[in-house]
Amino acid sequence: MSRTDLLIRPIAPEDEPEWRRLWTGYLEFYGTQVPEPVYASTFARLMGNEPYDPIGLFAVHDGRPVGLVHYLFHRHCWRIENVCYLQDLFADPAVRGQGVGRALIEAVYEAAEEAGCPTVYWMTQEFNYAGRMLYDRIGEKTPFIKYQRPAG
Amino acid sequence: MSRTDLLIRPIAPEDEPEWRRLWTGYLEFYGTQVPEPVYASTFARLMGNEPYDPIGLFAVHDGRPVGLVHYLFHRHCWRIENVCYLQDLFADPAVRGQGVGRALIEAVYEAAEEAGCPTVYWMTQEFNYAGRMLYDRIGEKTPFIKYQRPAG
Amino acid sequence: MSRTDLLIRPIAPEDEPEWRRLWTGYLEFYGTQVPEPVYASTFARLMGNEPYDPIGLFAVHDGRPVGLVHYLFHRHCWRIENVCYLQDLFADPAVRGQGVGRALIEAVYEAAEEAGCPTVYWMTQEFNYAGRMLYDRIGEKTPFIKYQRPAG
Amino acid sequence: MSRTDLLIRPIAPEDEPEWRRLWTGYLEFYGTQVPEPVYASTFARLMGNEPYDPIGLFAVHDGRPVGLVHYLFHRHCWRIENVCYLQDLFADPAVRGQGVGRALIEAVYEAAEEAGCPTVYWMTQEFNYAGRMLYDRIGEKTPFIKYQRPAG
Repeated sequence: MSRTDLLIRPIAPEDEPEWRRLWTGYLEFYGTQVPEPVYASTFARLMGNEPYDPIGLFAVHDGRPVGLVHYLFHRHCWRIENVCYLQDLFADPAVRGQGVGRALIEAVYEAAEEAGCPTVYWMTQEFNYAGRMLYDRIGEKTPFIKYQRPAG
Repeated sequence: MSRTDLLIRPIAPEDEPEWRRLWTGYLEFYGTQVPEPVYASTFARLMGNEPYDPIGLFAVHDGRPVGLVHYLFHRHCWRIENVCYLQDLFADPAVRGQGVGRALIEAVYEAAEEAGCPTVYWMTQEFNYAGRMLYDRIGEKTPFIKYQRPAG
Repeated sequence: MSRTDLLIRPIAPEDEPEWRRLWTGYLEFYGTQVPEPVYASTFARLMGNEPYDPIGLFAVHDGRPVGLVHYLFHRHCWRIENVCYLQDLFADPAVRGQGVGRALIEAVYEAAEEAGCPTVYWMTQEFNYAGRMLYDRIGEKTPFIKYQRPAG
Repeated sequence: MSRTDLLIRPIAPEDEPEWRRLWTGYLEFYGTQVPEPVYASTFARLMGNEPYDPIGLFAVHDGRPVGLVHYLFHRHCWRIENVCYLQDLFADPAVRGQGVGRALIEAVYEAAEEAGCPTVYWMTQEFNYAGRMLYDRIGEKTPFIKYQRPAG
């Protein structure tokens, strides 16, 4: 597969079954699952136009979706424009290493640029070696680590 | 100073000079500065009621602000409710180690809980040892690290 | 290549040319090189029997060396027996992912066990993703990080 | 306490009781303990002259030992001379922040230099914030992390 065979396009309403398939694969990668109402709510938000709702893109090869990305914008106290948080990125294992992840991240870079919000960031597990091989080429590691409120 | 001497309260319009003083201290901690329009814009957002704008709290001791926190809510594709991102936390160096940071984080936990968004997270530099001494007690480190789009 | 095709054996005097080839590949992985006297000295130590000198093993496939490991023993104040420090590990890129690294590490585990020194450790760069994929399966990450005296 | 009040000197046979007290404090810091034969064996090695045995120094203030360091030399395949591994470092909590740790590390730098082995390294837990505050000033963090053979 050459990268020129890849089409990056917005996720559309008729994509819901394929979106569910790919997003489930992503959630499985993180060893998690979400209940049906979250699938429904997240897909509805992806389809809407609310400015702070997530936006989704598909990577399509030969007419078949093989990857997805979800991103959203949020305020940042250090600047006037919003920043772009790339939350979910997934490439079908069958097409790994063929530029799907890179093409999706680059598409988010462009979309953020067009939205006037050039800052794009994401988080990944320190031991996501396969992901980090890509991220080191296309992004840069920061010294920031994530803390969270302990579970109840 | 005992922790019962600390009052945590929303930042109010008349607090702008003290807010500027404390936030400048925070930015200096990160070796950075922001231009005047960012001070103005961020303070205006803190004073407003837009649901995706940042919210600010002061820690006040003997009538004097000694710390601040900024937090905001954003969507999360894995759940229906928003999550709370604690973006900026600062305690005046003169009161370090006296519970100001802890009281501010706990106040954000409560505010997020009341907003129906119990997930609270923040990011810190791996080598922010003083901060992490507190965060390890009041929060939990995750394996997530932050990547970003390279500058220009 | 199945793992049963692999022979792990001590490096012998007549292996010097192949040892130089593989060890140079390893040093190149780390973006470094060493002068000729270090090649000579290290090989001489590998061939000797001094108890604190390094020991070397080859992984051989179809009669051809495809990987090497160097390890040594040193004192440890917390225990009576020595510990085993696995210093250098290399598999020819042409055979990566085929069990050479694993077989060499397991051979060191056995050699250390036989020497009465069951503790084996090694260090790797945080971003050595390919290596860590293996190390996470065959070893365990500790929370220890390495500091050094600054150069010059 | 000014740093000029500190004397760094070799641990001597008559120091055994004080050495046991300080080293126990160090082991407690790591949440561990060692059996009596390890105390005896390690102290005997510190008192001997075997080239690969550990060497110990005391930091003494007003005639009272307030800190210790253990270091040893081992082979390194990348160079001809040995390297110095600074294994254990401890300052009595009562004197923390007063330069004891720094003086001990600098004494090891000097001893290694005199031994013709200028490379000195040590390992510390990623979350040893107090230690790292010092190490970042006097040493440099490397990207190396430690893996070990899993416990039987």
